[in-house]
Parts: sequence; structure tokens; C-alpha cells
Amino acid sequence: MPFSYHRTIHFADTDAAGVVFFANYLALCHEAYEESLAATGINIARFFSDHGIIIPIARSTADYLRPMMCGEKIRVTITPVVLSENSFALDCTIAKLGPPEKIAARIRTEHVCIASATRTRIAFPAALADWIKAAG
Amino acid sequence: MPFSYHRTIHFADTDAAGVVFFANYLALCHEAYEESLAATGINIARFFSDHGIIIPIARSTADYLRPMMCGEKIRVTITPVVLSENSFALDCTIAKLGPPEKIAARIRTEHVCIASATRTRIAFPAALADWIKAAG
Amino acid sequence: MPFSYHRTIHFADTDAAGVVFFANYLALCHEAYEESLAATGINIARFFSDHGIIIPIARSTADYLRPMMCGEKIRVTITPVVLSENSFALDCTIAKLGPPEKIAARIRTEHVCIASATRTRIAFPAALADWIKAAG
Amino acid sequence: MPFSYHRTIHFADTDAAGVVFFANYLALCHEAYEESLAATGINIARFFSDHGIIIPIARSTADYLRPMMCGEKIRVTITPVVLSENSFALDCTIAKLGPPEKIAARIRTEHVCIASATRTRIAFPAALADWIKAAG
Repeated sequence: MPFSYHRTIHFADTDAAGVVFFANYLALCHEAYEESLAATGINIARFFSDHGIIIPIARSTADYLRPMMCGEKIRVTITPVVLSENSFALDCTIAKLGPPEKIAARIRTEHVCIASATRTRIAFPAALADWIKAAG
Repeated sequence: MPFSYHRTIHFADTDAAGVVFFANYLALCHEAYEESLAATGINIARFFSDHGIIIPIARSTADYLRPMMCGEKIRVTITPVVLSENSFALDCTIAKLGPPEKIAARIRTEHVCIASATRTRIAFPAALADWIKAAG
Repeated sequence: MPFSYHRTIHFADTDAAGVVFFANYLALCHEAYEESLAATGINIARFFSDHGIIIPIARSTADYLRPMMCGEKIRVTITPVVLSENSFALDCTIAKLGPPEKIAARIRTEHVCIASATRTRIAFPAALADWIKAAG
Repeated sequence: MPFSYHRTIHFADTDAAGVVFFANYLALCHEAYEESLAATGINIARFFSDHGIIIPIARSTADYLRPMMCGEKIRVTITPVVLSENSFALDCTIAKLGPPEKIAARIRTEHVCIASATRTRIAFPAALADWIKAAG
């Protein structure tokens, strides 16, 4: 089942055009990813540090469909998709709550598991594989 | 009654030392300020834009007592304090939830009401005065 | 001729993994865009505010090829590409200066000219058309 | 001799009020600190990571005197001041270049040397002591 993360747009997310800075849409998706990992019991401080395995983002694509303003309520829905035995994508939708509800962005990030000592790809660690199975 | 805002530390809040970047402690207090204003029905997109009145932060002081890591749960408590008929302070405490609970920072921001046309100080608008009374 | 923007990676650009946060790669490209516009005499405070025309980013794609650390010197090269009479792309390359020089990311952003009153697409304003011609 | 750091205000520094977000003034001072350290040959990626010694910011005070807009040129001047054998302050002035030149903020940050293994204060490492002497 896809994971949903609720959030209010903060003033610090915005820029002088009065709306969320485009790069910050990606940060919102990463927050949802963190919350989803944490919800399954993964220690995210350890997960995102170098503990022998690193899982960098190799690629992102984003379609910015609507502006978002300070104080607006949003829901970020993320669905992991297996790409290979050592890589996965997150399909993210940012919706502005309504009524009527409107899609503000569709974003995909691609993540690769790397053994940090050898800089080579390795299979998903078990906790991550479980999370992908549960959330996908 | 002081207003409390709950939040999880995000990866984007941190820096290469592995903990929240010092300037971002101030942004956390501003988030709490936004949530507190919104909770009393103030439209914060309008409040923080120039609508004839602007309420810039004139001064801040921060004591950084403990680091905060990605995934940690915090509570930001803010108490407004009237400084004059056109200025107020926010006393903010950032606590890491426990057990045991620990204070991560004590921060004060000072805010001044300005008529944007004349760049002179003016008295609090009614909604702000009400919020200060309710939250102080 | 493509425009080149030189920059040092700041501590605030990084995250707890010790390297630049993925969303901040996009912000680096936007800085190069700003510098390029300013270099041709465009007032960018006005350009990025709503002055009857807004030019939001409709889409971005990013390939993150290498991490970047605090203190590293980079060069962001941007080349505008006309997509239609009211939209253009920026092809951005972020290089870590060497020797040896290495590509850290390839990023494309797509920009659309909108008349803010009617929310409909309009042709490039003259200053923007000139900039695209000069930098493309 | 005080160290001067030159910078242009970026769009990402601003918020929906159209000017630099107050917390980002502190980040500008940290950039100047980084540049000053790097100018004396200190490896700042190592300096800001935990290499047995950490030098966290314990306190900051900021007087925000003027707003800064996207595209404006600034100069951040920093002067280190010894507070004790294991702590120092940075006196920072952010000036908007003119003519006429105007002070945008006066900020002080206080830094403490800590042995990370024991969490106790220790004397400045030699490279830092040299930098304080040279820049103070």
C-alpha cells in the first residue's frame, strides 16, 4: 500500500516568487521517504549515513504542475518500484488538499545500493527489501 | 498557554557534521510561529506577504545546547512576549523528546510591526494582538 | 556560447551523508541561470517576481553522477535550448574542477512563459529571447 | 586583518516576502567562515567533520538591519575574537554594496572546541589558532 505523508508548506520552503522553490519539491518527497522508512522501524540516522552500504539517488524527474503557498496542506504519496536487484524507484505524487484536491507535482527518484568500500552495486539489504515489498 | 509544535528532524535539515545545521534551528522556530498563527485562523500566506503591514524579525539570539539528528522527534514551544506597542519577542525552546527529554536550544526572535508604505512602526494589527494575548 | 558559473560547495549545501543533498544540485543550476541572466543586464529581482509574466519551471530531470563535498570547487555550465515559442530548456552540467575534472551531474530544467493575469502561455519577452540567443 | 567574502544573493536564499529568509543570514556568515578557513589552507571538509575535534556553534546573535533581494551584491566581513583558550567568536558584518553601501546585518557566532571522544573542551588545534591570529 502506498505510504502517505502529510505536511504543511512552511515559509522557509518558499522563494521570492511567493511559492515553493522548485528544488524543494524534491526535498518534500525525500521527507516522505524518510517517514515511510521510519514507520517500518528503520533507524534513518543510520540508514542515511555510511554504514557499509550507501543508497544514493542516481536520477530524478519532476513535473511541476501547480504552485504551493505557505500554509497550504499537502499529502505526499510514495510508491517504491523495483528496477533491478540493486536499484529501485520512488514514484511520488504531491497533492494539495482541497476541496477540491489538486495534484501539485509528480516526481520519480531512482536509488541504487552501493557497497561503500568497493563502490560497486550490491543487493538490497533485508530491511530495505522488506520496506519495498510492504510499501510497493 | 504556550504553543507546542511537534516535528521530526529531516535529512534536509542536517549538514555534513551529521546534525542539524545551526541556522536551521531558527527555521524550526519559525515553523512553530507559523503553526501557532494558523491555529488561531490567521491566513499565513497573506500574513507573511506585504499587505500594507510587514512584521520583519529585527533580532535573534540562539543558544545551541545539543545536536539533533535525522529522525529525532522534537517539540518546539513558543511564547510571545510584548516588548512595546509595536514589537514582540518569541521565546522558543526546542526539546528532543525522550525519555529522557532534553533541551536542544533556547532561541529568542524579536519582531517589529512596520507600515510598508511609510517604513515606520505601527501598532499590532488586531489579529496579531489577539494571538499574542492568547499564546502569551 | 554556454555560460559558466564558478562556485565553491558550502557546508549548508551538504547533508548528514557528508555530501551535497540531491535537491541542492538543482539549486546550483538555478544560481547559474540567475548569474547568466544578470550578466546580460536583466534585473533578476524583477525577472523572478510576478511582473505580468512568470516563467515557472515545468519539469526537471537530473542525473547525479558523483558526490560533491564541502570546499570543492565546481563549474556549472548552462546552455538554453528553445523548445517552442513560449518554452525553453536549460541544459546544465555540473563539473568538479580537477585535475582531473569530473562531471558531477547533468540536469535539464524546462521553463514556460505564462501571462500571469490569464494563466495562458505567451511568447518570450524580448530580453529573454535575446538572452537565449546569446547564451544558446 | 578581517576577511571579506563577496557573494550575490540567490533566489534560493529568499522567501515569499521577497527577501532573504532571516535564518539564511546566518548561513551567509558561515560561508564567509568557510572561505576564510580555506584561504589559509585548511581542508574544510575534514575541518567540519568529526576528526577527534568538533567545533560546534554554541550561540549566535543577529541584528537584521535591512532586507536583501535576489541579485544584490553583498560583502560579509568576519573577524575572529578569542573568548577563552577553547572558544572564539566571529563578528560578522553583512554589507550591501552600493553606492551607497549599507549594513544589512551584524551577527556574532560563538564557537567551542570539543574533544569528540570525551565531550570535553580542549584547546584550539594549531591550524585554528593560526587562523584566529591571522584573521583577528
